[in-house]
Amino acid sequence: MKRIEAIIRPDKTDRLIDRLEEIGISGLNITEIKGYGAQKGHSETYRGVTYRIRLRKKIKVEIIVEYTDVDRIVEAIKEAVQTGEVGDGKIFISDIENVIRIRTGEEGAVAL
Amino acid sequence: MKRIEAIIRPDKTDRLIDRLEEIGISGLNITEIKGYGAQKGHSETYRGVTYRIRLRKKIKVEIIVEYTDVDRIVEAIKEAVQTGEVGDGKIFISDIENVIRIRTGEEGAVAL
Amino acid sequence: MKRIEAIIRPDKTDRLIDRLEEIGISGLNITEIKGYGAQKGHSETYRGVTYRIRLRKKIKVEIIVEYTDVDRIVEAIKEAVQTGEVGDGKIFISDIENVIRIRTGEEGAVAL
Ligand SMILES: Nc1ncnc2c1ncn2[C@@H]1O[C@H](COP(=O)(O)OP(=O)(O)OP(=O)(O)O)[C@@H](O)[C@H]1O
Ligand SMILES: Nc1ncnc2c1ncn2[C@@H]1O[C@H](COP(=O)(O)OP(=O)(O)OP(=O)(O)O)[C@@H](O)[C@H]1O
Ligand SMILES: Nc1ncnc2c1ncn2[C@@H]1O[C@H](COP(=O)(O)OP(=O)(O)OP(=O)(O)O)[C@@H](O)[C@H]1O
Ligand SMILES: [Mg+2]
Ligand SMILES: [Mg+2]
Ligand SMILES: [Mg+2]
Repeated sequence: MKRIEAIIRPDKTDRLIDRLEEIGISGLNITEIKGYGAQKGHSETYRGVTYRIRLRKKIKVEIIVEYTDVDRIVEAIKEAVQTGEVGDGKIFISDIENVIRIRTGEEGAVAL
Repeated sequence: MKRIEAIIRPDKTDRLIDRLEEIGISGLNITEIKGYGAQKGHSETYRGVTYRIRLRKKIKVEIIVEYTDVDRIVEAIKEAVQTGEVGDGKIFISDIENVIRIRTGEEGAVAL
Repeated sequence: MKRIEAIIRPDKTDRLIDRLEEIGISGLNITEIKGYGAQKGHSETYRGVTYRIRLRKKIKVEIIVEYTDVDRIVEAIKEAVQTGEVGDGKIFISDIENVIRIRTGEEGAVAL
């Protein structure tokens, strides 16, 4: 199984969750984080004053899936949140060895 | 070493932490998250009005341990938080390559 | 690619982020968590009353990097946050299989 973590702009969260429900994922969780990517420490102008911005609020959406589902979920994430502007976000893929559904004790892909 | 992540109902957090202390784990961390599992998008009735519920507050408890400890910790988590009702939670197991205790510089299982 | 997670004292966050910018990392994210390490459940005295302290606020700083950068980043983290007192924090290293920059669709190390 695989862990897909998408770090996205907060205002894209609803759109992404809708899209993931449409394509039929079995579960997800989200965490509020702060971060920066390649443009770290860039400045931003607000009402004529320039501020150096370090960390921006982002949302991390995490989905544990069978490895055969990774590609279509990554495509769905890109479609849902891509604007073409810097800061669209990152997706990280990593390995999950086992999953257990606590209610039933089921393990592995059947527990997803 | 292994990472055990248990996503549980918030009202089971104290009970789980007590149980994990009893069995002698060396450390843990918890994060507030929101999520849904297999019953996503189900509705709920409150004072006669039906709302579609998307994301519920959950707690993620994360414990890094030697791989020989995984099974007994998973059993302890199940015992502490299982109610038999949907939404009891999930456990995810994954690999950790190295651990460093910052104070001493110790690495590997001795740093746990 | 590797995931470096450093769990540190909240009051060391700015110092660590400054240091990581100095050594030129390409991105990071931070999460507010609570946790305990080897001294769990120890007590603390405040105005003459002793309280059993369970969970302390910590900050998790997460950095995805090429594996060749892990050692110098770990050294930079130690230098930035080590005080020599218990509770200085932990660093966890794990594997990341793929990274995607959503804006461009780039994958792998070039997307970092
Ligand atoms: N190397 C990294 N390690 C950990 N988190 C990262 C890393 N790079 C980015 N992030 C997280 O992803 C968020 C979004 O990054 P961002 O979209 O700015 O990536 P980028 O590589 O700078 O791409 P772009 O050029 O499109 O801005 C950041 O705010 C941060 O939370
Ligand atoms: N596939 C998944 N990926 C990421 N997070 C998940 C996944 N499935 C569940 N979760 C997280 O675990 C929490 C608890 O899930 P839940 O207990 O409802 O699992 P379930 O499979 O629906 O089991 P049950 O049938 O007992 O409800 C969710 O709220 C979500 O935060
Ligand atoms: N085994 C563990 N699993 C998950 N998180 C941990 C673990 N050990 C420590 N942590 C997290 O790291 C934080 C810092 O731990 P801490 O610095 O107290 O480690 P320690 O091993 O007790 O070292 P020290 O003896 O220097 O206090 C904890 O508050 C917790 O959030
Ligand atoms: Mg960027
Ligand atoms: Mg469920
Ligand atoms: Mg400690």
